[in-house]
Amino acid sequence: MLLEAIYHRPRLNWSYAYDENTIHLRLRAKKDDLTEVYAWVGDKYDWDKSKELVPMTVFTSDTMFDYWECEYVPPFRRLKYGFQLVKGDEKIWMTESEFQTDRPANPNRLFEFPYIHRGDIFAPPAWVKDAIFYQIFPERFANGDPSLNPENVQPWGGIPERDNFFGGDLQGVIDHLDHLSELGINALYFTPIFASPTNHKYDTEDYMKVDPHFGDTDTLKQLVKACHERGIRVLLDAVFNHAGRNFAPFLDVEQNGEDSVYKDWFHVREFPLSIDDGIPSYDTFGFVAEMPKLNTENEDVKNYLLGVAEYWIKEVGIDGWRLDVANEVDHQFWRDFRQTVKGVNPEAYILGEIWHESSPWLEGDKFDAVMNYPFTDAVIDFFVREDLDASGFAAAIGKQLSRYPLQASEVAFNLLDSHDTSRLLSLPGGNKKKLKMAAVLQFTFMGTPCIYYGDEVGLDGGEDPGCRKCMEWDPNKQDRDLLAFYRKLIDIRKSHPALRTGTLTFLDAGNSGKLAYERRLDGESVIVLFNREDSGVTFRLPVPEAGWRDLFTGEIYKADRGTLSVRLPASGYAVLAPYAL
Amino acid sequence: MLLEAIYHRPRLNWSYAYDENTIHLRLRAKKDDLTEVYAWVGDKYDWDKSKELVPMTVFTSDTMFDYWECEYVPPFRRLKYGFQLVKGDEKIWMTESEFQTDRPANPNRLFEFPYIHRGDIFAPPAWVKDAIFYQIFPERFANGDPSLNPENVQPWGGIPERDNFFGGDLQGVIDHLDHLSELGINALYFTPIFASPTNHKYDTEDYMKVDPHFGDTDTLKQLVKACHERGIRVLLDAVFNHAGRNFAPFLDVEQNGEDSVYKDWFHVREFPLSIDDGIPSYDTFGFVAEMPKLNTENEDVKNYLLGVAEYWIKEVGIDGWRLDVANEVDHQFWRDFRQTVKGVNPEAYILGEIWHESSPWLEGDKFDAVMNYPFTDAVIDFFVREDLDASGFAAAIGKQLSRYPLQASEVAFNLLDSHDTSRLLSLPGGNKKKLKMAAVLQFTFMGTPCIYYGDEVGLDGGEDPGCRKCMEWDPNKQDRDLLAFYRKLIDIRKSHPALRTGTLTFLDAGNSGKLAYERRLDGESVIVLFNREDSGVTFRLPVPEAGWRDLFTGEIYKADRGTLSVRLPASGYAVLAPYAL
Repeated sequence: MLLEAIYHRPRLNWSYAYDENTIHLRLRAKKDDLTEVYAWVGDKYDWDKSKELVPMTVFTSDTMFDYWECEYVPPFRRLKYGFQLVKGDEKIWMTESEFQTDRPANPNRLFEFPYIHRGDIFAPPAWVKDAIFYQIFPERFANGDPSLNPENVQPWGGIPERDNFFGGDLQGVIDHLDHLSELGINALYFTPIFASPTNHKYDTEDYMKVDPHFGDTDTLKQLVKACHERGIRVLLDAVFNHAGRNFAPFLDVEQNGEDSVYKDWFHVREFPLSIDDGIPSYDTFGFVAEMPKLNTENEDVKNYLLGVAEYWIKEVGIDGWRLDVANEVDHQFWRDFRQTVKGVNPEAYILGEIWHESSPWLEGDKFDAVMNYPFTDAVIDFFVREDLDASGFAAAIGKQLSRYPLQASEVAFNLLDSHDTSRLLSLPGGNKKKLKMAAVLQFTFMGTPCIYYGDEVGLDGGEDPGCRKCMEWDPNKQDRDLLAFYRKLIDIRKSHPALRTGTLTFLDAGNSGKLAYERRLDGESVIVLFNREDSGVTFRLPVPEAGWRDLFTGEIYKADRGTLSVRLPASGYAVLAPYAL
Repeated sequence: MLLEAIYHRPRLNWSYAYDENTIHLRLRAKKDDLTEVYAWVGDKYDWDKSKELVPMTVFTSDTMFDYWECEYVPPFRRLKYGFQLVKGDEKIWMTESEFQTDRPANPNRLFEFPYIHRGDIFAPPAWVKDAIFYQIFPERFANGDPSLNPENVQPWGGIPERDNFFGGDLQGVIDHLDHLSELGINALYFTPIFASPTNHKYDTEDYMKVDPHFGDTDTLKQLVKACHERGIRVLLDAVFNHAGRNFAPFLDVEQNGEDSVYKDWFHVREFPLSIDDGIPSYDTFGFVAEMPKLNTENEDVKNYLLGVAEYWIKEVGIDGWRLDVANEVDHQFWRDFRQTVKGVNPEAYILGEIWHESSPWLEGDKFDAVMNYPFTDAVIDFFVREDLDASGFAAAIGKQLSRYPLQASEVAFNLLDSHDTSRLLSLPGGNKKKLKMAAVLQFTFMGTPCIYYGDEVGLDGGEDPGCRKCMEWDPNKQDRDLLAFYRKLIDIRKSHPALRTGTLTFLDAGNSGKLAYERRLDGESVIVLFNREDSGVTFRLPVPEAGWRDLFTGEIYKADRGTLSVRLPASGYAVLAPYAL
């Protein structure tokens, strides 16, 4: 038994309340090392009468470790606990202070889960589990009101550059809601729409004003109303880490230096403001002088930004905020942000942009979810870069699942591309088969999928600015096969709850491009298969049900004495659900 | 290299800001496995130009692991980082996603410290590092106003029982402040003083009223004023997890059941209130029917209790709160509590009662410190129970140090006994030598020491109620040798800053009862030695300084070619500081 590999800590992903009654306990061990693991649990104030051994199972693995888990409903919402680790004849007990061979005599040295409080439970809004998101970069989605065009607007469909404009606006979105409804979208995430001189608008000039090239508050109200009538929720982008260089308080500091009443709104290292060898004398996003970092610890700044967050929810009824560069803003700000936002709309959704391990923000007091770029990386590494085989993909996913409480994984914001990355289609040089495999995985996986505008009609493009092309509205130029594929895919996800909220178990994930997993919920099972190889392969999977149907092709499969055989061609995929023969 | 033993996570004790400029990074490895470890750090937005290798050192160890650490001051308050692990010729790189043999090409997959924000740094009040605490159980400290005596008061010095009274009160404390000043105390922690029917008063009847047997608000004001004039700070006990059975809202619920306006102030599982087979139909502290658990998530309850916390700071000027059963109250309550308390007194001290790993409460947003019972256990296991040898003691301490950021360890509330444990003197059956060794360790260790009233004059007693004897005020019955010892000990701590805020390094901690460690600050060194054995032993320690002086005995030691030899008798101790020969 490799004791150095054992890990548990009485908090975070290791020990948490899943709901008001249920505690999840997890323990890490070396992969394939232990044969059994038990949680040794009881009431902290009645240990002798209540103690019991609860078996744990491996719920996920990565390249080096197994992660064991059990759930337990304590009668009085509190626990003392330890673990019993078994490897063949060897039995070891684990307490908060040590490993020992004897059963712990003193329960006081066990771990403790003090009490389940409702408000401390990580609880994202229920609707997010069922959401199908679509990300819109407004300047490039549709031009619905040419009267708002910026000067020097380029013809729609031209080559996107860092600083050119094509006239996309909010009316354009309103005009194309049919497209989104027909696709099956029920939630939109807009990159910033507030007044700003750039096409991306991540350098805000006025947080209280819709950019005049996009429309005005009334247009936004109409948009939100029209979306809500179709059952589509709307998320806006809160760029609170930094402002833009035209933000009035920044202009004031630039002009008045230390005498400015706004001097503490930013992180100024030296007055007057200057830029020396490319490095501004004030903190910025990266080293971008046009994006001065806001001092979100300053009470005036905080009150101003929380006012912004509250205003747009109250005034136009948006359903939540996506938070730009969220990890570079202070934690206390986000705690107050959550209280403000949930105070005006308890069902509002708070989505942080964080590219790294995000557990500090997913404890219930800050965000509901983060943009799941580690998922993006794993999918691209497997299907596109082929840096990972199926076992490596399963391990990368397993590591990610092990990091968070289950409820966080259930609503992870699973994207494959965005305005900050290459288009998925362009990564494999336009190979649509790879895009389809990745998308099938995305829509049959645990977590909330998001389509980046235009992926569904075959838009391509490399990194910024390439990925910010104008949306293609000419049906003759749209990839209609791809559009039909996405519609079908969304329909499959919507009609199978197991794909949205079921468990995830890898069935085949070895040292090849063959990948199979099962999603299961209340006895409903869906099996998903991929063949990334360049020649056909045959899966043989033990299954309880006899009949299966491919949800894409309608093909019927019959298991032979409990084994289902499915042949997939090169770059093939299949999504199978039980079928009464 | 045992990779399964390596642990790092980009948060908590593993990666934190020590101050506004400095980041501490830590990594766990198998004990004695790695020969060198480097942090591989750089600015996240300027990686190529800023990246560098920073050597790490082992800052503490436990039985199984070494904990490596470095500090780094990033130019722009943010970091990307990974680690390079070295064992002889073997070199492995660690990123957020994996171990690899090649230097990571893609900095995006490294760990990240996004930005240092002042308000997110764990920062207890500076004065706590210099505090010498003394815990008073008011009913048993001194009777200063017999007119307040409860009925059936027992003669002072009688046998303490669970429900008897001896008439101690606040005037009694005022009368004996000379004793505390002469001892060297500069901070008092009082167990509860608010109206309650019991002698311990952990079942509050009225949070806004000093218990009439103890005095009134004016007496408390006089007490706090008199303390402040002597430079003594005052901490009261906030029993917010539960109220007492006479608390008016609870009486109302008892009487009116579901119709009570206070029905949501508690956690009632079934109306009317009842007790079935010893189990109340409402949540309680343990299963104690007289201590109904407060629903601290209820806004009215929260506002009421935060009002209490604020009132006593504003009204009588107390310097902070000790929080009873702190881990069974919700986290959001404590966050709001901190904001309230620090809002009225930024220097107020918030001390939680938690007997277990407490990292969830020591991240800067809740408590300043917790009662360090794992320290208590380690000291008693080593000096009294002799369950641990010196190496086991160092490992237990090492584990504890590894769990928290340095600033938390610097103000850990190090107690050896309390109203909830046996008296230290009674554990080894009155063996004063063991008590003295334990106390010398406590007062020369990292963390804030606290004396439980009467320990300094030889009070003894087993677990509650034995440990709650009346204070001995008759000089002829006080252990004057012990009192002189404590005075000296406190004087030594006060006159050597290294003992309060210096680093801690074990110099001798092997498989015996010989223990030696060094505290060092800005070049000032103090060496502390113990011999728990039943016969004399001789220490040989490599030291840079030639002359040393025993701060208790005045004895002078001379190092011989860099080696200091000190002989200690059985149960001996010595505290040595450099001395100019």
